[in-house]
Amino acid sequence: MLYDLTVLQFSKMLNNLSALLDKGAQQAEAKKFDVSVLLNARLAPDQFNCIRQVQIACDTAKLGVARLVGGVETAPVHADTETTLPELKARIESVLAYLASVQPSDFDGAEERHISQPRWEGKYLTGLEFAIQHAIPNLYFHVTTAYAILRHNGVDLGKKDYLGAMPYKH
Amino acid sequence: MLYDLTVLQFSKMLNNLSALLDKGAQQAEAKKFDVSVLLNARLAPDQFNCIRQVQIACDTAKLGVARLVGGVETAPVHADTETTLPELKARIESVLAYLASVQPSDFDGAEERHISQPRWEGKYLTGLEFAIQHAIPNLYFHVTTAYAILRHNGVDLGKKDYLGAMPYKH
Repeated sequence: MLYDLTVLQFSKMLNNLSALLDKGAQQAEAKKFDVSVLLNARLAPDQFNCIRQVQIACDTAKLGVARLVGGVETAPVHADTETTLPELKARIESVLAYLASVQPSDFDGAEERHISQPRWEGKYLTGLEFAIQHAIPNLYFHVTTAYAILRHNGVDLGKKDYLGAMPYKH
Repeated sequence: MLYDLTVLQFSKMLNNLSALLDKGAQQAEAKKFDVSVLLNARLAPDQFNCIRQVQIACDTAKLGVARLVGGVETAPVHADTETTLPELKARIESVLAYLASVQPSDFDGAEERHISQPRWEGKYLTGLEFAIQHAIPNLYFHVTTAYAILRHNGVDLGKKDYLGAMPYKH
């Protein structure tokens, strides 16, 4: 189930995020302002701007999965230098390609794996705890905050843009 | 795992949300304004205010779990009449009490259960799809949006307030 929760669902959310940014670009074009205004917008002076929210959403997806499958060194490296929409979308695409390379079988033992980060000073979470209490809430936090920044600046977004399509059955 | 992802983690996030609102109240008291200003704030004219974000976060947790365990009729009913912080916190407490009444064994068969809602016009999702693609992203959306509204209005919040404590081990 961790594969579905992370690889599949994070990929879906990153695609949704990319589409949210496109809607921002459409709004900018229609209203004749530079999309960089939206990309550099933020909700509070000491909160990250939209660019940084997208970068962190990408890193949360990439490193969350990489840590769960024990392969941080296999994840693509990004220098956080994006300033334009095409650059941000390329970063999302790079993470999507990485996620697509991860197989369900890579998650064997992931729930019990000890996950740590440098800033945790030697402490760890189990893979299950890390996924449920750290990676997943963080991913949604940054996608929602990017959405909120765009929404606050008048981009015409709705919940459906955030959630994406549902696999409804009859 | 669905029990941990929903009952346990939704409870954690609702407790975090309650603490976010308390921080808003502290800020209001320190700055000598009425906390209702924060509760009625929103990020866009046509987006729900903070009160409604909290109400929907509560409903997403309550009904998400109730639908997964096949017990919508056992969930507490709320009339969406809250206007004050104590009322909002009482609603959160009510949902926490309901979640605490749900047992892991209630989730037997939940992943395959057909989940529907009136607005889906007869279509359904499996329990696993509903949890991963609908209930979980919605819960985080509304908690993060409440956070963003408070943060935008100067409340001193950080990511740790959103995520809550981690069960780190040595």
